[in-house]
Amino acid sequence: MAVGLQAPGELHAVAGIRLAATHCGIKKDPAIRDLTLIELSEGSRLSAVFTRSHFSAAPVQLSRQHLAANSRPRFLLINSGNANAATGSAGLKAAVECCDAVAAPSGLEREQVLPFSTGVIAELLPVAPIAAAIPDLINLLDADNWLQAAKGIMTTDTLPKAVSRQCTIAGKTVSITGMAKGSGMIKPDMATMLAFIATDADIPQPALDGLLRQIVETSFNSITVDGDTSTNDSCVLIATGASGAVVDPDDNQFRSALRSVFEQLAQAIIRDAEGATKFVEIRVDGAASPADARSIGFTIAESPLVKTALFASDPNWGRLIMAIGRAPVSKLDPERVDLYLGQVPLLLQGLPDPAYREDRGADEMAREEICIRVDLNLGDASARIWTSDLSYEYVKINAEYRS
Amino acid sequence: MAVGLQAPGELHAVAGIRLAATHCGIKKDPAIRDLTLIELSEGSRLSAVFTRSHFSAAPVQLSRQHLAANSRPRFLLINSGNANAATGSAGLKAAVECCDAVAAPSGLEREQVLPFSTGVIAELLPVAPIAAAIPDLINLLDADNWLQAAKGIMTTDTLPKAVSRQCTIAGKTVSITGMAKGSGMIKPDMATMLAFIATDADIPQPALDGLLRQIVETSFNSITVDGDTSTNDSCVLIATGASGAVVDPDDNQFRSALRSVFEQLAQAIIRDAEGATKFVEIRVDGAASPADARSIGFTIAESPLVKTALFASDPNWGRLIMAIGRAPVSKLDPERVDLYLGQVPLLLQGLPDPAYREDRGADEMAREEICIRVDLNLGDASARIWTSDLSYEYVKINAEYRS
Repeated sequence: MAVGLQAPGELHAVAGIRLAATHCGIKKDPAIRDLTLIELSEGSRLSAVFTRSHFSAAPVQLSRQHLAANSRPRFLLINSGNANAATGSAGLKAAVECCDAVAAPSGLEREQVLPFSTGVIAELLPVAPIAAAIPDLINLLDADNWLQAAKGIMTTDTLPKAVSRQCTIAGKTVSITGMAKGSGMIKPDMATMLAFIATDADIPQPALDGLLRQIVETSFNSITVDGDTSTNDSCVLIATGASGAVVDPDDNQFRSALRSVFEQLAQAIIRDAEGATKFVEIRVDGAASPADARSIGFTIAESPLVKTALFASDPNWGRLIMAIGRAPVSKLDPERVDLYLGQVPLLLQGLPDPAYREDRGADEMAREEICIRVDLNLGDASARIWTSDLSYEYVKINAEYRS
Repeated sequence: MAVGLQAPGELHAVAGIRLAATHCGIKKDPAIRDLTLIELSEGSRLSAVFTRSHFSAAPVQLSRQHLAANSRPRFLLINSGNANAATGSAGLKAAVECCDAVAAPSGLEREQVLPFSTGVIAELLPVAPIAAAIPDLINLLDADNWLQAAKGIMTTDTLPKAVSRQCTIAGKTVSITGMAKGSGMIKPDMATMLAFIATDADIPQPALDGLLRQIVETSFNSITVDGDTSTNDSCVLIATGASGAVVDPDDNQFRSALRSVFEQLAQAIIRDAEGATKFVEIRVDGAASPADARSIGFTIAESPLVKTALFASDPNWGRLIMAIGRAPVSKLDPERVDLYLGQVPLLLQGLPDPAYREDRGADEMAREEICIRVDLNLGDASARIWTSDLSYEYVKINAEYRS
């Protein structure tokens, strides 16, 4: 029951990128694709951010190693159904063998393959079915397989998530296409569950790194379903350069197209959040620091009491006050706080708006897309966080996840 | 559906304390008591801790003021059904008027009355029905009314929570009796929802303050239902001295009896947590600092994915690893972490125990009382956190709270 989320529209091929997805057997249902391969043309540049979990998964550790070795990655191999996390040296060995299975037939170095996994934690990744599926996957690689690949990386997602944009740079058409997966265990910390965004623009490595770090902060790092950060979060941005269009990192048109792809994918994760019946934007303005603004936004977004009130469409905004009150911020003056539900003022300068009427709050809460706005009136810092509600269905999905 | 929680047993009167509770009209149902008065004999000493919420409620602000004025409190007035929080100067005025209504007929100063409120946030407290009920309440005061008072302070609690102990000091019998309320919006920060514990021991003020601060840390400050800290949390410890027994603050027998009252009340809140089907103890050992130990305990305790797995009795302990991994601790080496479910090892030195069998995990998870133990093997610091699971009933209770 995704909130305002459609199946992906037209997905532009990105020159220099080919993809394929298949069923290799990690998941039981033979109709479900659980293994995805992405090929990058020679000369592509890649930037990535990963989870900050202390228990980062084997593929996260290995991808970091491969990138640190200054490899020029040519393949990304992604399995769903098994996270290969908390699997120790055996898990690392399995990830290495999967990379070898891709590198060998293509005559590449192991370090030119980056592995990614998502699924159940603390189970060993079965290498044999993955290795057996690789030759077929390589044969199936095609520039038009973005949708198939977006399906291949899904776990509890109800819809594939992929977004595409084009812009013109120096007379050349540049494509940006990205895909992401995730609907639970979502509070990315420097990255998201899994997201892969590619462009055929030509972008120097430092600029590519800078773009990724900036844009991920206000997209994937500004969403939360349950406050639970995964062991496998990874976000990859690829620039193949195959369009021949060289991008100035300060080019607003490109940056804005790229930002739009990131934000729509991040929103798609929230719209498809486990059990979600609402899509909620929380805006915090007037904070003393960006960290304070984010802290208040996330405290509201992750409060079970706020989330159940959202599910019930109950304008019980005392719970918003509670959440703001408990946020671990450096500076807050309750007598300056303004609070709005959509266009309806709730609190002005810390006091209930005398004009507030319950039916006006109820009207705002009845919407499928809800905006909560807090103004601390203390400084210039802002944040915008996207989240979902907490429904019976969320409990059901996560109580029955493995059954 | 409280977990292993019975109605209170025998509650010893505390010499110097009289109580009464009545229905004044804040709540609709005339059968429900919503106003409670506690009288302290002259010469009683009192220590209190309050919520750290930025939006602390009017009664919290006023109680702090009255205590700062070095008043010797003689009455505590507690209403349920309305939190008198986020109500600005009108709320503060209402709290003052309630104190006056108690002080005037007794010929006391306003500052000798401490007000407490619990219930819906952001609604003005109606003074008239409270003031009208005070004369009757004063007439009803009785040393044996602890159970009635424990019922009077309830909100979504399904059972009253009160605990009593006696010990002998220098040949004199000393009683300790306490009561608490709370089952949702529970993550006390320096205090709990509402808790009032009284003894007739004679304890010097600095020792009383020290005892409260120490014991509250490992009792009310070590529980969480939903991570949501209330605007009204308050915990009060009273020593009337009426038994004539002077307590040495280092007396282990008294300290241990007092600790036992605090811990049982804190546990009672978790056992009666909204929608709870499990009582869960999380022990963290071997941490580099007490803050790290508590941080890991609370991160596990508040993870919606861990809580739904507990509800489902599903030994999906990958979620425990996820939660440990995302805890904001200063120091953690995944290759040293041991993890146990009851007596069953899950992870040893960061690796799944080869002897683990799913049915053994399932047996542990099927219990109503579950112990999760983490050993970081890094240092000497420990923590013990109590929490509940996340059930359909939790969502139902909080989605329908005001309807």
